[in-house]
Amino acid sequence: MNGRLYAIGTGPGATDLITVRGARTLGRLGVLYAPAGRKGGDSLALSIVREYLSDSVTIRTRHFPMSLDSGEKDAVWDAVAAEMAADVEQGLRVGFITLGDAMLYSTWVFLLARLQGRIPIEIVPGVTSFACIAARAQLPLAMESQSLAVMACTDDESALEQALLTHDCVVLMKVYGRFARIQALLRRLGLLDNALLMADASLPQEQCFRALGELEPDRALPYFSTVVVNKSWPAAAAK
Amino acid sequence: MNGRLYAIGTGPGATDLITVRGARTLGRLGVLYAPAGRKGGDSLALSIVREYLSDSVTIRTRHFPMSLDSGEKDAVWDAVAAEMAADVEQGLRVGFITLGDAMLYSTWVFLLARLQGRIPIEIVPGVTSFACIAARAQLPLAMESQSLAVMACTDDESALEQALLTHDCVVLMKVYGRFARIQALLRRLGLLDNALLMADASLPQEQCFRALGELEPDRALPYFSTVVVNKSWPAAAAK
Repeated sequence: MNGRLYAIGTGPGATDLITVRGARTLGRLGVLYAPAGRKGGDSLALSIVREYLSDSVTIRTRHFPMSLDSGEKDAVWDAVAAEMAADVEQGLRVGFITLGDAMLYSTWVFLLARLQGRIPIEIVPGVTSFACIAARAQLPLAMESQSLAVMACTDDESALEQALLTHDCVVLMKVYGRFARIQALLRRLGLLDNALLMADASLPQEQCFRALGELEPDRALPYFSTVVVNKSWPAAAAK
Repeated sequence: MNGRLYAIGTGPGATDLITVRGARTLGRLGVLYAPAGRKGGDSLALSIVREYLSDSVTIRTRHFPMSLDSGEKDAVWDAVAAEMAADVEQGLRVGFITLGDAMLYSTWVFLLARLQGRIPIEIVPGVTSFACIAARAQLPLAMESQSLAVMACTDDESALEQALLTHDCVVLMKVYGRFARIQALLRRLGLLDNALLMADASLPQEQCFRALGELEPDRALPYFSTVVVNKSWPAAAAK
């Protein structure tokens, strides 16, 4: 019985920002589960890793609903977890791919909650989107005794404000659809000059905005948009 | 003129947890600068990447003092930055390697501060130690609207306490020499059962402690020791 489930963080988007271990693990899979944004839609994670797969791998694309009621979500996670467990119990090397790192804001954690301790699991970490953004924009995250907060913009505004007041560096994930509120908050706190927004980091269509005060509040931004604030390193000075 | 400086995050320690881009970039370097913990000492970062280097690369190990006065540190960073700039200006592909990610608690940022805008620079992000710890221990970092704080234990105790009270998940870096104080703080806040400590994650000598209340406060821990606290996922349940 060599069955095992491998959860692999693909990194932020560019094919070569996956780890060497992730790439090698992908090449030895019998089955790969890939999340798709829409039902029957393409999987960005799958497009990132396709070149590392063997010819014989079976790909199972699965749609995880984002905005349905929690009962419906639970049913999907239960079903996919059961499929994975059955594959592993047949002795297959089963993979699940997830953008960025597997343990940070990833659907993978809902599957892990169902499978931990039941089947052999190995998790291969990945480069987070914000590490990639810091690298691409040449804007550091934290140094020495500084602190970094990673926040979801779906959190309460008071929590976002508190993080921006307290920490030296703040990453604001899930900006999509919420930019106007984030821009207003950064303006109120006097942090617009220490912030930048990057969308689709490391992909060909990557965009970086450094003068956030000048962006139209209702501007349509790509889904993968993240704001990074560093109070001790003006965003305009970066790169 | 193809000269360029590449700052490459090696990841947490295992050779195959570097990115594919990092590995490929290393193979094309003319010169590699590697940080060493002690003067004339070995470089852990260098040992991680050695298999990816070409036979013709020139390796320059440089010692960055940790605890001297800031004037002495500045002089070292100035000198190494000048060496790197001179190599790049000669048209060389110059590398600098740094454990984990290049933009988080890395000496690289002091070099970047001296070289940004002066020479062509490319930064290759890496897997952070805490992403690796979360993967190895099967302990998630943050999900949905949760938040993550990454703190240095050199920070004020009040800042550490505030982070532990405020955020769903807290990573405590730089625990070395400070475990007794961290243990007492976690005990006071009732968080010992939601914390684990991992040392040398992904290396052969990796150690994971899940019952932090039972560890002797003055226990000698490896230099690379990190505590991860997740309030919504008991550490004992992980793996």
